[in-house]
Amino acid sequence: MRLVTTQAGLGRIEDGAIALLDTAFPHVGAVLEQGGSLEYLASCAVRRRIPLDEATLVAPLGRPRAVWGVGLNYLSKAARAGRGLPEQPILYLAASSAVLAPGAQVVIPQAATEPDYEGEIAVVVGRRLYQATESEVWPAIAGITAANDMTARDVMRTTAVPALAKSYPGFTPLGASICTPDDLPDRDAIRVQTRVNGELVQDDTSAGMIFPLPDLLSRLSWFTALEPGDVVLTGTPAGTGQDRACFLADGDEVRVEVDGVLPLVTRVVRPAEDAALRDHRLTEPVS
Amino acid sequence: MRLVTTQAGLGRIEDGAIALLDTAFPHVGAVLEQGGSLEYLASCAVRRRIPLDEATLVAPLGRPRAVWGVGLNYLSKAARAGRGLPEQPILYLAASSAVLAPGAQVVIPQAATEPDYEGEIAVVVGRRLYQATESEVWPAIAGITAANDMTARDVMRTTAVPALAKSYPGFTPLGASICTPDDLPDRDAIRVQTRVNGELVQDDTSAGMIFPLPDLLSRLSWFTALEPGDVVLTGTPAGTGQDRACFLADGDEVRVEVDGVLPLVTRVVRPAEDAALRDHRLTEPVS
Repeated sequence: MRLVTTQAGLGRIEDGAIALLDTAFPHVGAVLEQGGSLEYLASCAVRRRIPLDEATLVAPLGRPRAVWGVGLNYLSKAARAGRGLPEQPILYLAASSAVLAPGAQVVIPQAATEPDYEGEIAVVVGRRLYQATESEVWPAIAGITAANDMTARDVMRTTAVPALAKSYPGFTPLGASICTPDDLPDRDAIRVQTRVNGELVQDDTSAGMIFPLPDLLSRLSWFTALEPGDVVLTGTPAGTGQDRACFLADGDEVRVEVDGVLPLVTRVVRPAEDAALRDHRLTEPVS
Repeated sequence: MRLVTTQAGLGRIEDGAIALLDTAFPHVGAVLEQGGSLEYLASCAVRRRIPLDEATLVAPLGRPRAVWGVGLNYLSKAARAGRGLPEQPILYLAASSAVLAPGAQVVIPQAATEPDYEGEIAVVVGRRLYQATESEVWPAIAGITAANDMTARDVMRTTAVPALAKSYPGFTPLGASICTPDDLPDRDAIRVQTRVNGELVQDDTSAGMIFPLPDLLSRLSWFTALEPGDVVLTGTPAGTGQDRACFLADGDEVRVEVDGVLPLVTRVVRPAEDAALRDHRLTEPVS
């Protein structure tokens, strides 16, 4: 099953169109947070159908209550960076107020001088995971989506705090759709590709992860409880702007594609000054 | 105004009793997250009144969408630790799945060998703060409450990641009530006291902060947008278990008292093994 949240409500993608569902839940995240399963959405009655390209997609999960991330989780990235493999995953939290709707603009504040993209596979938790074994992880995953785990490299260098370098408003584009695990072509080799202005800059699969999804979420679950609706960003492969010595510029378009998921497109805006940025809502409200 | 969330609904504390309010909001956090002001609760009709000691208090904010914290923010703590004053606040995020209801038990996992308390003043954001000046901070604060920003000192030492050392389920007791700023005796010198098994171990006021609340939240707001319902834990004064070389033991009772806020009491459980811990819900659901 492939799900979207649109301005007209929740929908299933069926035969290239969107079947809008008869449900009061505002987004996929709300279904999970309130203890439901996405199976509920499989059986919802259809209100009407609209063409995919006529829908305005909004953040599929609203604003999650946790967005975890992991540094250096692809063999390709470690090789490119000339770094050894970590013995434990390098885990962090980013502020979920940074979540951006698919197709929206991210406005880079002046303070972030080296804004970078990170195309990633995002895991959406469907059932609580605490002190979980690897074999318990996949059955607890509601679905996957695409993420752009943007980072201000300069802030990371000066503060060494991922939560500060990754939490500007709009720095976590997430979407555009949710794909349930049963609908993945190969859950052990999920492809993730990133294009900047059409140029392919990242291309890898989850088979290249240092800590594969079951291992990663199991390890995380020994430090914290992952609750339904929480999101885990699973690391970025080689080919970030940092690897290419080329940061994001005004007008750039970043497109992250993940197997089974609609493309996640984000437009970069770098205004000459921050005026009016403070009160500017960067996206549709994602509640 | 002083507010509580009870199993019987939202209430105002009035004349030592709880006035249960005629509102569908499940907790104070939901009012804020959905764009409301706590002024709305000031004018809500009263359904009925119950004695304070007959109410079962639950997490006043549910599960927030962000819990920020700050390391080393009291002069007393820096002096006790023999550390210089930081030039910038040491900011981190903890997982909000760690939030614990007032009066509940925290079950320490075996992996956390040095569990510690940190009595703190918690700020509840009422209006969005992004790139805010100091003078804009107090008008955007909905209220304050008490927090116990528990830390596994051993995990902090081995990982250096606050998000891992502070995110075990139940490690963030929060409550018991919310006090709006106008109801504080002195908002520039809010007292915070911690007692372990009745012994006073922390006693300071916010006048002893290295980065006072307006400065702290303003600085944070230059890295991220604080949204309504988000929580900022504002640091702990001298007198933690770390300072006293004494970590929490099975059966300990930790009590954090903050001006204008009902005492936040937490009972510590350290089972001999983790069996059954994984699936054990530590608290009433805080949705």
